[in-house]
Amino acid sequence: MPFPVFHQAILIGKHQAVGVGRTLAEIGAWLAENGVEVSVERQTAHHCDLPGYADLSLDEVGARAANGGWVAVVVGGDGTMLGAARQLAPFGVPLMGINSGRLGFITDIAESEWHQALGAMLAGHFEREHRAVLAGEVLRDGQRIYDGIAINDVVVNRSGSTGLVELRVDVDGRFMYVQRADGLIVATPTGSTAYAMSAGGPILHPSLPGVVLVPIAAHTLSNRPIVLPEQVHIDIEIVSQKDVGVNFDMQHFADLLGGDRISLRTAPHRAVFLHPPGWSYFATLRKKLHWHEILGVEV
Amino acid sequence: MPFPVFHQAILIGKHQAVGVGRTLAEIGAWLAENGVEVSVERQTAHHCDLPGYADLSLDEVGARAANGGWVAVVVGGDGTMLGAARQLAPFGVPLMGINSGRLGFITDIAESEWHQALGAMLAGHFEREHRAVLAGEVLRDGQRIYDGIAINDVVVNRSGSTGLVELRVDVDGRFMYVQRADGLIVATPTGSTAYAMSAGGPILHPSLPGVVLVPIAAHTLSNRPIVLPEQVHIDIEIVSQKDVGVNFDMQHFADLLGGDRISLRTAPHRAVFLHPPGWSYFATLRKKLHWHEILGVEV
Amino acid sequence: MPFPVFHQAILIGKHQAVGVGRTLAEIGAWLAENGVEVSVERQTAHHCDLPGYADLSLDEVGARAANGGWVAVVVGGDGTMLGAARQLAPFGVPLMGINSGRLGFITDIAESEWHQALGAMLAGHFEREHRAVLAGEVLRDGQRIYDGIAINDVVVNRSGSTGLVELRVDVDGRFMYVQRADGLIVATPTGSTAYAMSAGGPILHPSLPGVVLVPIAAHTLSNRPIVLPEQVHIDIEIVSQKDVGVNFDMQHFADLLGGDRISLRTAPHRAVFLHPPGWSYFATLRKKLHWHEILGVEV
Amino acid sequence: MPFPVFHQAILIGKHQAVGVGRTLAEIGAWLAENGVEVSVERQTAHHCDLPGYADLSLDEVGARAANGGWVAVVVGGDGTMLGAARQLAPFGVPLMGINSGRLGFITDIAESEWHQALGAMLAGHFEREHRAVLAGEVLRDGQRIYDGIAINDVVVNRSGSTGLVELRVDVDGRFMYVQRADGLIVATPTGSTAYAMSAGGPILHPSLPGVVLVPIAAHTLSNRPIVLPEQVHIDIEIVSQKDVGVNFDMQHFADLLGGDRISLRTAPHRAVFLHPPGWSYFATLRKKLHWHEILGVEV
Repeated sequence: MPFPVFHQAILIGKHQAVGVGRTLAEIGAWLAENGVEVSVERQTAHHCDLPGYADLSLDEVGARAANGGWVAVVVGGDGTMLGAARQLAPFGVPLMGINSGRLGFITDIAESEWHQALGAMLAGHFEREHRAVLAGEVLRDGQRIYDGIAINDVVVNRSGSTGLVELRVDVDGRFMYVQRADGLIVATPTGSTAYAMSAGGPILHPSLPGVVLVPIAAHTLSNRPIVLPEQVHIDIEIVSQKDVGVNFDMQHFADLLGGDRISLRTAPHRAVFLHPPGWSYFATLRKKLHWHEILGVEV
Repeated sequence: MPFPVFHQAILIGKHQAVGVGRTLAEIGAWLAENGVEVSVERQTAHHCDLPGYADLSLDEVGARAANGGWVAVVVGGDGTMLGAARQLAPFGVPLMGINSGRLGFITDIAESEWHQALGAMLAGHFEREHRAVLAGEVLRDGQRIYDGIAINDVVVNRSGSTGLVELRVDVDGRFMYVQRADGLIVATPTGSTAYAMSAGGPILHPSLPGVVLVPIAAHTLSNRPIVLPEQVHIDIEIVSQKDVGVNFDMQHFADLLGGDRISLRTAPHRAVFLHPPGWSYFATLRKKLHWHEILGVEV
Repeated sequence: MPFPVFHQAILIGKHQAVGVGRTLAEIGAWLAENGVEVSVERQTAHHCDLPGYADLSLDEVGARAANGGWVAVVVGGDGTMLGAARQLAPFGVPLMGINSGRLGFITDIAESEWHQALGAMLAGHFEREHRAVLAGEVLRDGQRIYDGIAINDVVVNRSGSTGLVELRVDVDGRFMYVQRADGLIVATPTGSTAYAMSAGGPILHPSLPGVVLVPIAAHTLSNRPIVLPEQVHIDIEIVSQKDVGVNFDMQHFADLLGGDRISLRTAPHRAVFLHPPGWSYFATLRKKLHWHEILGVEV
Repeated sequence: MPFPVFHQAILIGKHQAVGVGRTLAEIGAWLAENGVEVSVERQTAHHCDLPGYADLSLDEVGARAANGGWVAVVVGGDGTMLGAARQLAPFGVPLMGINSGRLGFITDIAESEWHQALGAMLAGHFEREHRAVLAGEVLRDGQRIYDGIAINDVVVNRSGSTGLVELRVDVDGRFMYVQRADGLIVATPTGSTAYAMSAGGPILHPSLPGVVLVPIAAHTLSNRPIVLPEQVHIDIEIVSQKDVGVNFDMQHFADLLGGDRISLRTAPHRAVFLHPPGWSYFATLRKKLHWHEILGVEV
């Protein structure tokens, strides 16, 4: 085997899941045998029994990865992958996702095939894909009181038990609409197949430079999803007075007040995903969305 | 004018709204002049200056209305009408709704036309319409811990800030589905043009003996609204463990626990609405839903 | 085995499908052994090699079935079942559907299980279900020029290559709307999971006494599906001048003219389907619509 | 008034519409007074009485407009504007649309305001907007048998009276899906608020570099609209055998055969629209889609 393209790997696992520790141990051993220096993400190391490797936080990985040569190997589901990608995106560390259950939208290597996929990748045979990331901050009286980034989506919704939220949305300083709804989802292409799809949004191809705004149960019938160019600045002002929160990839910041503004842009950095040779985004869609099946009378 | 069909009227108003008190006073005076005995709903009496009339709670109205001859005159919007109808439905007291703002789905007499409409109605010229009502109870360990009725809808949703709810639905004792969604709406035909419509539900004609189940942002793409016969018994079991609540016409009961069951049936009584002669449900739909307008290229 | 509930069976097959003839032969032999007199639908007899049985048209079956005791055994898919049910519904002959491929919505007995299912049925163990049927006629200058019935749906749409149709719909003599769309579907509960579902309609439970109107690509955004009570009279007038047709269960009548009216009612008779013991409509929905699967991030 | 930015104007009218000729005459006179050389599109000249101006085909305009200084002034609706834009886009001639009826999505100057808007524009006060255009060709056995361009959409659908079409779609040479549906719409951002919206598509902002594929009544429930980057090459192969046609902005080419391929790309040129100062795309959406209105109970 030629010298690997990646010489440093950080192992990240959905440590709650049964069997993930053992898979990580096998992958770690195999990588080490193939000349890759292996370390383990700190939470993963804490929960899984993976002796002999250094443990690092993802921030520490980021600090060391400036010169490249690193890869993050994630074993879990799309949620684990999202969390890791959100932290590693600013540092440009690429991730590959091995699914310990049913294949996900972004964890597209079956556990049974990790050996073959990793081998190909170390030999330089992979597809590198860049996914847009949303960066936002919450402003109160002009002061930032919170900020976050999201690989999937930023969701503004009620944090109390009933009632709608009322949100004013401006795009590049131009008034778009006042939305009365259960909530509003701003999704990246990656997030377009997650919550935004449940709320009726379209699929955005990962390489489309756009974001989609999808209202949840909008109180205006014609309030369709709208796809905006990714370089716009989206400004969401809370018009309702209470019980509104904002979620960056489901990480909740509650207690927004009337007049607070959520200011969103596409981040300057992108998450980098690695896929095995022959990977096809469309194949993933077909499989996960049952596009091969037909309803109704016999065909 | 012949002897009126109705000889007792209870006035109910959206007392927070400007001008409602004055309209109620004019209506009360006119009804009294025309031989109708007038009383005022207690909350309305408390907030509006309507001297000279007895004030009654709607329960007291119900107790006195057993022999018929009563009518409730509601001045407000659909919300005021819903609240009054929910309380009066068990007693069979008919309601007519005068809208103080834009015409509603069920408050269909414009304020400027109350005189003409009331005149016709007292002379016996009106359309009587019966609307189904949902009755439900919440059971914990087999014990009833809450009950309520709804003219529009019963909504089961999260009461916390994030996350979906997981609900198991049985219909007449047969398993239908486990729904993972932001929530689940069970709507009457009256409620089909309210929240259920925002969530993507169909319109049910008021005389259709059916209820519709509409999931909110269902996590299964194919989880379409389903319309069931009104006589079914719907049983919704909370599968998720926390932060779930139930709303009867937006009146919230929170703090449901895993294993709690919401048991729903169509109530034996119906709400009775009176409409002026020539009233058309379809005309209301056309007006409120802009069915006369066409999108797109010139037509 | 006790004396069979059914003593006359008519065999109907999707004769184009491979293997259907053999299955029919096996079923016929088994029925004869069990004291049932077997005949074969004429088209089926013509295409399949089934010697020794009388062949009958479905009209002839109807004429003989007035005193009961008949059952139609259909081997094919939902389309074959629909065609047979449409012809037999006026005579009250019950049908059971054995699916030669993937289970359908109404052909719910797997081919591998016909023996067990037929045995149970002959012994009187089955669920009898009545499905509403639409009956319609096309009127030109007040004269009937066509009539048809439909188990699934009546569809009015363009018969030319482009352009929308413009249809005026009255319900029980009251104007509902003018629909500008690619077409309009009027579906029974049985049809609600067929073409109407593709066009965005809700699911109607088979025992709901209702029909649903679903526009196809309506040019008004808010033109939602509307569910009407089954006893209404629906009158669809062609407003556009040309290239409009009407389909009863996909059987096309073209060349409608402006001013022609399609007059629809629920038929006085119902199609009767027999299901094996333990059959569940909801189980069919869950299976065919993948209600057990969840999108998005790991669950 | 300073020397006009545009010194050549071509007048184009929806000549069938009442009063368009008179408006064109007034605009022509005013432009001439203000130093602009005026000509009239040939069809418009043929139908309207506009003496004293040269008449030109749009191809002739294109040939003369290579050095700039031309503007097309369209009086009509969105359909007239689309037709003119489709012909002028290859030559880069900008268009402004004056609506003789209700304001359109792209004809956004009210007839009563043409004087003010034209004055501002000639003085150089306007917003210039570039809209993507689809270019396609139909290939049979590798030979081009038809080609066309579209400002709104390319639609592949049945040209006969019933039945679905079956289409295989490849994107940049990668298999995406086989679509079974009434048809498939490929829409530009401009077209996203036309037919594609009727079929359930999202709104694409005009500056989004994307196209959207929207199936019409897809026979797979999960077949959501998908937004692709505008630079992709979309290849649609006819799988069904007959009665399929393709429409470029509703201009129909019928008689496609199984195996025929429709090859689509975004054209190298864009249509150029001029808007008066202060124009807002979002204001048009709000107005045309009634985003200011709220359904349901009183708000």
